[in-house]
Amino acid sequence: MPAAAARVIAVDTYDIRFPTSRSLDGSDAMNPDPDYSAAYLVLRTDAGDGLEGHGFSFTIGRGNEVQVAAIEALRPHVLGRSVSELCADPGTLSRALIGDSQLRWLGPEKGVMHMAIGAVVNAVWDLAAKAAGKPLWQFLADADPAWLVSQVDFRYIADALTPDEALELLTRGRAGRAAREAVLRAEGYPAYTTSPGWLGYSDEKLTRLAQQALADGFTQIKLKVGADLADDIRRCRTARAAVGPDIRMAVDANQRWNVDEAIRWTRALGEFDPYWIEEPTSPDDVLGHAAIRAAVAPVKVATGEHVQNRVVFKQLLQAGAIDVLQLDAARVGGVNENLAILLLAARFGVPVCPHAGGVGLCELVQHLSMFDFVALTGTTEDRVIEYVDHLHEHFLDPVEIRRGHYRAPTGPGFSAQMRPESILQYSYPDGAFWAADLRDQPQEIPA
Amino acid sequence: MPAAAARVIAVDTYDIRFPTSRSLDGSDAMNPDPDYSAAYLVLRTDAGDGLEGHGFSFTIGRGNEVQVAAIEALRPHVLGRSVSELCADPGTLSRALIGDSQLRWLGPEKGVMHMAIGAVVNAVWDLAAKAAGKPLWQFLADADPAWLVSQVDFRYIADALTPDEALELLTRGRAGRAAREAVLRAEGYPAYTTSPGWLGYSDEKLTRLAQQALADGFTQIKLKVGADLADDIRRCRTARAAVGPDIRMAVDANQRWNVDEAIRWTRALGEFDPYWIEEPTSPDDVLGHAAIRAAVAPVKVATGEHVQNRVVFKQLLQAGAIDVLQLDAARVGGVNENLAILLLAARFGVPVCPHAGGVGLCELVQHLSMFDFVALTGTTEDRVIEYVDHLHEHFLDPVEIRRGHYRAPTGPGFSAQMRPESILQYSYPDGAFWAADLRDQPQEIPA
Repeated sequence: MPAAAARVIAVDTYDIRFPTSRSLDGSDAMNPDPDYSAAYLVLRTDAGDGLEGHGFSFTIGRGNEVQVAAIEALRPHVLGRSVSELCADPGTLSRALIGDSQLRWLGPEKGVMHMAIGAVVNAVWDLAAKAAGKPLWQFLADADPAWLVSQVDFRYIADALTPDEALELLTRGRAGRAAREAVLRAEGYPAYTTSPGWLGYSDEKLTRLAQQALADGFTQIKLKVGADLADDIRRCRTARAAVGPDIRMAVDANQRWNVDEAIRWTRALGEFDPYWIEEPTSPDDVLGHAAIRAAVAPVKVATGEHVQNRVVFKQLLQAGAIDVLQLDAARVGGVNENLAILLLAARFGVPVCPHAGGVGLCELVQHLSMFDFVALTGTTEDRVIEYVDHLHEHFLDPVEIRRGHYRAPTGPGFSAQMRPESILQYSYPDGAFWAADLRDQPQEIPA
Repeated sequence: MPAAAARVIAVDTYDIRFPTSRSLDGSDAMNPDPDYSAAYLVLRTDAGDGLEGHGFSFTIGRGNEVQVAAIEALRPHVLGRSVSELCADPGTLSRALIGDSQLRWLGPEKGVMHMAIGAVVNAVWDLAAKAAGKPLWQFLADADPAWLVSQVDFRYIADALTPDEALELLTRGRAGRAAREAVLRAEGYPAYTTSPGWLGYSDEKLTRLAQQALADGFTQIKLKVGADLADDIRRCRTARAAVGPDIRMAVDANQRWNVDEAIRWTRALGEFDPYWIEEPTSPDDVLGHAAIRAAVAPVKVATGEHVQNRVVFKQLLQAGAIDVLQLDAARVGGVNENLAILLLAARFGVPVCPHAGGVGLCELVQHLSMFDFVALTGTTEDRVIEYVDHLHEHFLDPVEIRRGHYRAPTGPGFSAQMRPESILQYSYPDGAFWAADLRDQPQEIPA
């Protein structure tokens, strides 16, 4: 643990953008041209142990500077704080950030300001796990259940999950933990891959990547849909032909539809046996998802990557609106709120299949699923973490996939730390990549 | 109308903050120390007619700079646009802003980025109404119903309101319009006042202000509650004694409670005959509001000032979760989205009683209620606009209250324009007020 007197002496921020739109990686019906980006922060301390807390909000390009500004607005809450107190109790900081009496107006608990809170809170957990010398999944799995309960904000969810119920779930979840940890270290955690299915890819590329996914040991793939029904039917047929009948094939509409359209379109794809329909409509529409789910069964309904906080997840579960909960590590208020969401999912018996991809999301979210397996639900049945093979090379401790499974990270922390040279090169607009790029295309400099 | 060739040549932004926290004006259980602020913009054109479009997001202090950054992120969508095209069809810009394929990730349609869209869209409506030489309420009431329908984004609400249904509501709403316009001009639109009820006020001040409200012709007041039940009981008793049994007395918890707490606390105040309980819990909790409403009747349930968009309002109406819809002019995506919300409320027969106060919110929202009366629902029964007597002196065309009613504005535009000298003085941190203030208290400069 850090020296008792050590303080946070800097909260450094970076606007990091990768030019992914140029290869159509990540293209879908709602997001045709993402430049995967991170509003990134580093907590520096005077502990003298060389440890830093790294965290980030994921965005897809324009507006990343707004996200950085939001992180900077939180700086006064963190600067000067005791490192040992932060690491011993990230929940107190989490509550202080969410409860800031003026910043709260900008949400509350949603959008830019809430994602900024998530970035800062996650950086603290990265630091805490590093100080403990453990990967975050293990740091959480080794933690005392009562302490984990103390890290959860039950405001607005107590009608669905009480602290006592959470404690019971976590206490029960510990039984057999050592055996599951051994399984995790040996086999990893199941993954599925979205790499074949981006909208911008040709049918030939789709077929090739789908067959590659099979060869790589994945048992589930995902296709983007929602722009054009005839195209979707052709692409689903192509993918199904490539992978055969036994592989799960999810489809993802990225919020393109109204409720009625979602029902019609999903039914029209039914002959290809889609496993789930993801983001059929607005992530805010609890009742809409419930109506869609009732109409498209046995196709499952999945959402979560844009669900703003635990309050909306609570309702999706209360209303029986989803079959699959897609946790995201960087959308909500960080590890503390994701503990609440994992507990809610466990309480309602709904499997969590995290959203990942982008930049760094795979690195982060694997820890949460692995904790869930080792010390909460105790199962990986019907659970898979999304995997996309983009941009991992920029991380010090990148995810490792073997035979369709995430390997359990062994390095201390949250796997959130980007390589210094990547930060330098892709900082916007002054890093080496962008400076050269913008010099070549002066007429296209965004404001 | 502006010359056909005229373009938007500048989108100037200002970070304007008023030090209201020092007088405890605006103090409530969740917001103890607001500094009412505006992330403000001015659209300037080369039309040569001297007209500008003014708009703003309302915030309560810290983070106003984040809100300004979000408005600036939208600048490329507006700069260079044809003024006549913008004014003839603000809906096209509104859709472009909401649909920005990268900025969308930062919401979608919620929080900082969505409020920024609202500010820009409202500035366009201000300019359009000025160009037409009409106050906005009249500009809307005179508009062709089919054109108004074209201004609404039905995405995600078509399961509750179709374009055809909207057209029917607006067409029917026009009947008798001239007579209602005459009534509006003669009598104004009913208001209620929150001025007596801020948490930070003494009982003596509460009594004095409540009696003053009666003398001023108001028939409804509102008290902040939710910090301490014994205090609330004493304050409700004091206020009820001051105003007698015939005045409506609403109470407002500003999201302090869980569902169960909201039910218990509201019932505990029942003997004082509260008219509505406002913001009993998270604005995101549709199902929670429905449960509270079922349990606290005949006390009505009201919410809206923090409801992020039309999708959540749709569900509040579908679930029968609210008796009163509290429209806010600056929280959602501007006039276009507020048209959708007014139409949804009309469709479900739920009265709209707008949230106002802060800085400039009264000036804006009166136009929307007046349009609703003249050309949509045709009634003011059980409808009142909140009124708070703060900061109106900073506006060129401030609201005017007479005998408990908002007078109908007569000046062209959206009444959004702040006095230049106020902008100069209260710009943060360099305006005259803040420069002097921060010089006196250098240790308290926020980051």
